Amino acid sequence: MSNKDETVHPEARLPKGLFDVSAEEIRASAAMLATIRDVFASYGFEPLDTPAIEYSDALGKFLPDQDRPNDGVFSFKDDDGEWLSLRYDLTAPLARYVAANYATLPKPFRRYQSGPVWRNEKPGPGRFRQFTQFDADTVGAASVAADAELCMLAADTLEALGVPRGQYVVKVSNRKFFDGFMETIPELKRASREKRLQVLRAIDKLDRLGLEGVRALLGEERKDESGDVTKGAGLSQSANDAIIEVLTSPVASVVGPGKTQIISPLPVENETRFGSPTVTLGKSPILQEAEDELAQIESLVAAGGYSDRIVIDTSVVRGLEYYTGPVFEADLTAPITDDRGQPIRLGSVVSGGRYDGLVERFTGEKVPATGISIGVSRLLYGLRTLGKIPAETTQGPVVVLVLDRDRLADYQKMAQRLRQAKIRAELYLGKSGMKAQMKYADRRGSPCVVIHGGDEKAKGEVQIKDLILGATLTSIKDREEYLKKQSEAQFPVPEEKLVEAVQGVLARHKA
Amino acid sequence: MSNKDETVHPEARLPKGLFDVSAEEIRASAAMLATIRDVFASYGFEPLDTPAIEYSDALGKFLPDQDRPNDGVFSFKDDDGEWLSLRYDLTAPLARYVAANYATLPKPFRRYQSGPVWRNEKPGPGRFRQFTQFDADTVGAASVAADAELCMLAADTLEALGVPRGQYVVKVSNRKFFDGFMETIPELKRASREKRLQVLRAIDKLDRLGLEGVRALLGEERKDESGDVTKGAGLSQSANDAIIEVLTSPVASVVGPGKTQIISPLPVENETRFGSPTVTLGKSPILQEAEDELAQIESLVAAGGYSDRIVIDTSVVRGLEYYTGPVFEADLTAPITDDRGQPIRLGSVVSGGRYDGLVERFTGEKVPATGISIGVSRLLYGLRTLGKIPAETTQGPVVVLVLDRDRLADYQKMAQRLRQAKIRAELYLGKSGMKAQMKYADRRGSPCVVIHGGDEKAKGEVQIKDLILGATLTSIKDREEYLKKQSEAQFPVPEEKLVEAVQGVLARHKA
Repeated sequence: MSNKDETVHPEARLPKGLFDVSAEEIRASAAMLATIRDVFASYGFEPLDTPAIEYSDALGKFLPDQDRPNDGVFSFKDDDGEWLSLRYDLTAPLARYVAANYATLPKPFRRYQSGPVWRNEKPGPGRFRQFTQFDADTVGAASVAADAELCMLAADTLEALGVPRGQYVVKVSNRKFFDGFMETIPELKRASREKRLQVLRAIDKLDRLGLEGVRALLGEERKDESGDVTKGAGLSQSANDAIIEVLTSPVASVVGPGKTQIISPLPVENETRFGSPTVTLGKSPILQEAEDELAQIESLVAAGGYSDRIVIDTSVVRGLEYYTGPVFEADLTAPITDDRGQPIRLGSVVSGGRYDGLVERFTGEKVPATGISIGVSRLLYGLRTLGKIPAETTQGPVVVLVLDRDRLADYQKMAQRLRQAKIRAELYLGKSGMKAQMKYADRRGSPCVVIHGGDEKAKGEVQIKDLILGATLTSIKDREEYLKKQSEAQFPVPEEKLVEAVQGVLARHKA
Repeated sequence: MSNKDETVHPEARLPKGLFDVSAEEIRASAAMLATIRDVFASYGFEPLDTPAIEYSDALGKFLPDQDRPNDGVFSFKDDDGEWLSLRYDLTAPLARYVAANYATLPKPFRRYQSGPVWRNEKPGPGRFRQFTQFDADTVGAASVAADAELCMLAADTLEALGVPRGQYVVKVSNRKFFDGFMETIPELKRASREKRLQVLRAIDKLDRLGLEGVRALLGEERKDESGDVTKGAGLSQSANDAIIEVLTSPVASVVGPGKTQIISPLPVENETRFGSPTVTLGKSPILQEAEDELAQIESLVAAGGYSDRIVIDTSVVRGLEYYTGPVFEADLTAPITDDRGQPIRLGSVVSGGRYDGLVERFTGEKVPATGISIGVSRLLYGLRTLGKIPAETTQGPVVVLVLDRDRLADYQKMAQRLRQAKIRAELYLGKSGMKAQMKYADRRGSPCVVIHGGDEKAKGEVQIKDLILGATLTSIKDREEYLKKQSEAQFPVPEEKLVEAVQGVLARHKA
C-alpha cells in the first residue's frame, strides 16, 4: 500500500467522549448485564431490540434543522432528504414501536431492552457520547402499581448485583409537583413548554452545578470553567428568586398541608433539595394528584417490605421532558471515589418515570407508560468502587510454542487436540524465538505452554511448562524443595499424553 | 400533552433497511452468539469493544465531503467540523485500535468483537442498513498459518452451531491472483487504485448480478430492475472482454503452469467462476506468491484433517478493498429457501482475508493482519432454514390476576413470593376484568395464573389455574376423565402453599 493517497497518515484516535472497552471490562459488564436480565425477566419483562437509527421526528424532542442539525443528538440526512438520528435513549424508540404495533401487543406490554445510546453533548468526567442503558418499561398500565413495581425492580436488581441493603436508596417523586409549583409563579404559568422545560432542567442540575449554576441557567446564561456558555431560560429576577427560595429552604414538603413528607434519609453536605417549609403552595388539583399517587406508591412499597429502601423524596426532578407523573431514581449511598481516591458524585445509577404522552404523540390516543433505565457503565463503575466486581479470573489460553517453523502443522494439531478436549489453546503465530514466545505466553496469562523441539520429537515426548508454578520458584530458598518444584513446573510426557498432562496442570490452578 | 406543537403526529415507522428484533429472535441470536464466543475464545481470542462512531478518516476508504457526505457509510460532522462516521465493519476500527495501542498489545494480538455495523446502501432482500457482525482477527502474524487457522475456526464454529460436515464449505483464494491478473491487462495495470477496486467489486458481484450485470458494471453503468443507475468502471470494450473471457471459461486454474487448482466441489447452475483453462496468465512473482501461500494453507488444512471442508477455490474474490493476500468465505451448501419456500441465494455466512496494509495506513509501519467476519443475521437465517434453531421454549411468567383492585398490595406480594422462589411471575397491571386477564395470560404464554377473589380470601385459599392442562380439556370426550383433568387444571390450595402449588404445576410441564 505505497499509494500516494496515503502518504499523509490519518491519526489513530477516537473522537472525544468515545472509548474502547477492554476484555476485562467486557467480561465484567457481560456478567452484570446477565444478572440484570435475569431479574427483569423474573418480573415478566420480555426482550426487544430496536435499531440505532430512527427518523428524527419519531424520536421527537429534538427536531434538527439544517443550520444546526445536532442539538443533543447525532443527526444526518437520509438519501431522500429525511432527517435520521441516533437514538439518545431507549424510551423514544419504544414509544415508536408500541405505536406501530399496538394492535398485536399484549396489554400491558412489558419489555426490557439494553444497548448503546448516543448523546451529542460535551463530554466530561463520567459523561460519554456513547453509553449503554438497560431499560424496563410497562406500557398500557395507568395504575401507579406499575410505577411502584419498577421501584421494587430497581431495588431487587441492585441487590442481585451485590449492593447490600442500606447502601442504596430508590427515591420517588412526582413530576406533577413541579407542574403545580410552576402554576404558582405567574411568569411560568404563561410560559411556553420549551421555557418550562429549561427551568426543569436547570433545577435538575442543582446537584451538579450548585445553586449559582442553577441561578445562572434560570437567568441569561451560564459560563462553565472552560468558558463555554449555555443559554439560560431568561427568567425575570423575581421568578428566579422565587425558585431559588424553594431550592434553598431546608428539607420539607412542597405540598403544604398534605401528609407527603420529603424524606432525606441521607443528608449530603452542600446538597439542597427542591422543597421548603416556608413556601406554602397550597392545594391545587394537580398537587393533590401528585400527593395521592405518591401515597399509593408508598403503601404498595410498604406492603412489599421495601420501605427501608424506597422512599418518597420530592427533591427528585429528572430532566427528561416527557415525564408526566411519578419519577424515580436510585443512588448508591456509600462514598464513591475516582481513580485517585478522590470522592466523586456518581449520580443516579437507575432513573425513570411515567410518560403517559409519548405513544400519544404518534397515535393521538393516550397510552399510559412507565419505565426505568439503568446507566450500565455508571453502575459498573460504582459496583467496582464498592468492591462488588469480582477480580478477573479468566485464564489465558495454553500456548503451543513454535520451535521448528517447518513443523507448524504438528504444533497446530497439538493446539487442536487440546481444544477438542475443551481446553483453551492457541498456536504461537508470531516470528519470535523461544524466549519471546515464553514472554508472550506470560503476557497472555497462559497457565502453561507446550514445548516440542527436536529433542522432544526424537524421544516421542512433549514438555509441559507450568507458568504459574514456575513463577513461584524464585521465592523458594530450600534447594531440595526448589528441585522438586522445578521438576513439577516443567516435565516431559509421552506425546499421546499431552491432553491429560495439560489437564493435570489446569487442575492444579483451579480456583 | 395537548400542546399545539404536536397536532401533527409523526408517523410511527422505521427508515428503510432497519428493523426491530422480536423476543424470540433475540433469544435465538443470543444463544448463537454465545456459541460463537465460546469457539472463538477456545482459540485464544480475547474480546474487544470499540464505539459505533469513529473519525471518517480513521475508518478510511470513504472520505465524505459536504456535497455527498454519505457514500456507503453514514457520516456527519462533529461540532468542530470534523467528519464522523458510523463503523461499516469491525476491521477498520480494529486497525485504528491496534495503531493507537500497538506498544502495549501482546503480539500477535488475537481479538474477537461482535456488534452492529451500518451501511448506507440501498436495502434489499437480506440486505439491511444495520446488521451484526462477529469477527475474529489475528494482528501481527505474517504467517499464512494464521489464515489457515481462521479457516479452521470458521469450520469449527459452523459445526458447533449444528451445521453438519458436508453442509458447508470454506473456500480459500488469494487476492494476489487478482493483482496478477490485473497486470496482464495493460489498461488495468496503469489504472488508479479506485478503478481497480471498481473492477474487483464488479467481479465480486458475479454470483448476484450475473454476467451481464458484471459487464455493465465494468463498462459505463448498470441499471437495476427499479431503474436505479450505478456508475460503472468505464473500461474499454477490449479490457471488458478480457475479463469476461476469464469469467466465462470453465473451472480451471488461473495460475497457468502452477499446481494450484480451482476446486469446485459444489457446481451451482448458472454460476461461473473466476478462472479459465484457456487464459494462461503465465508466471509472475505475484502469481507465484499467491500459489505458494495457498499451497501452504492447503497443507496446514490437510494436516488438521479439514481437507473435506476447506478447499482452495480461486473464484473467490471478496469485494473489500483492503485485502492483500489470502481471502476466504464460508457458504452453507444445502438449499436455502425464503418464507414462501422459494430457493434463495443466501451468500457467504463467513468471510475474511488478510489485510497487511490497514494498520500501516496510520503508522507507516507494516503490521500483518488477517481476520474473519460472521454475518450474524444471515447465518441465523440460514440455520433456521436448516432447522438448526431449536423452537422457542421460554415459558411466559405466572400471572397473578387482580380481582379486587383494593387489594393490589396483596396480589403484588403473591407475585413477589413466587419470584423469591425463582419463579417468573408478574402482577396483572391493566384495568380489564377477569376474562380479559385470562386472555392476557394466554397471550403471554403463562403456564398458570393465580386467582384470589373474595371467596378464596374468605377461605384463606388461593386458586391455581393450569393454562397448559386447561387447554387440553376441550379435546377430552370421556366425562369422568374430563372431570378429573378439570380438577387438576384448576384447584384451590391454602394461601401459604401458593409457591409449592405453582412449583407443582411448573413441574408438570417441564420440557
